[in-house]
Amino acid sequence: MIVTSIGLAAAFLTIFSFIPQALHTIRTKNTSGISLYMYSIFTLGTLLWLVYGLFTANIPIIVANGVTLLFSAIILFYKIKYK
Amino acid sequence: MIVTSIGLAAAFLTIFSFIPQALHTIRTKNTSGISLYMYSIFTLGTLLWLVYGLFTANIPIIVANGVTLLFSAIILFYKIKYK
Repeated sequence: MIVTSIGLAAAFLTIFSFIPQALHTIRTKNTSGISLYMYSIFTLGTLLWLVYGLFTANIPIIVANGVTLLFSAIILFYKIKYK
Repeated sequence: MIVTSIGLAAAFLTIFSFIPQALHTIRTKNTSGISLYMYSIFTLGTLLWLVYGLFTANIPIIVANGVTLLFSAIILFYKIKYK
């Protein structure tokens, strides 16, 4: 029970950590410190996670990676537009 | 088989995407575009994932989050030191 809670807290934190980065990037348009390679690779990775989740009908994987993909794609878009 | 390969490729990409960001940050010491909140929350999240992996003896979770925690912590350290 405690272990499951730790896992859920871990998932919650790693998924929603991209929201402050996306807001920071949208507000400041400062993307100089952000790695284009990281967000290209990471966005492709979360897209593949989403495909994997859809194929295996795994709702937690679909939800988690749907949310993360959205914010990661926003950051990547800004990085490409304002680099 | 193809679906498992998609999942493994997804895991590989999302784990190793933090390496170019860490190298970029170490090389340039430019952390102005990086969100302190993101890396604080994300590093705590991967630490909890690692704890969860150790409690459940889940080797893939331990390996994936051990690697990600290392690079995330490096980026967080630079963000605090050079902000």
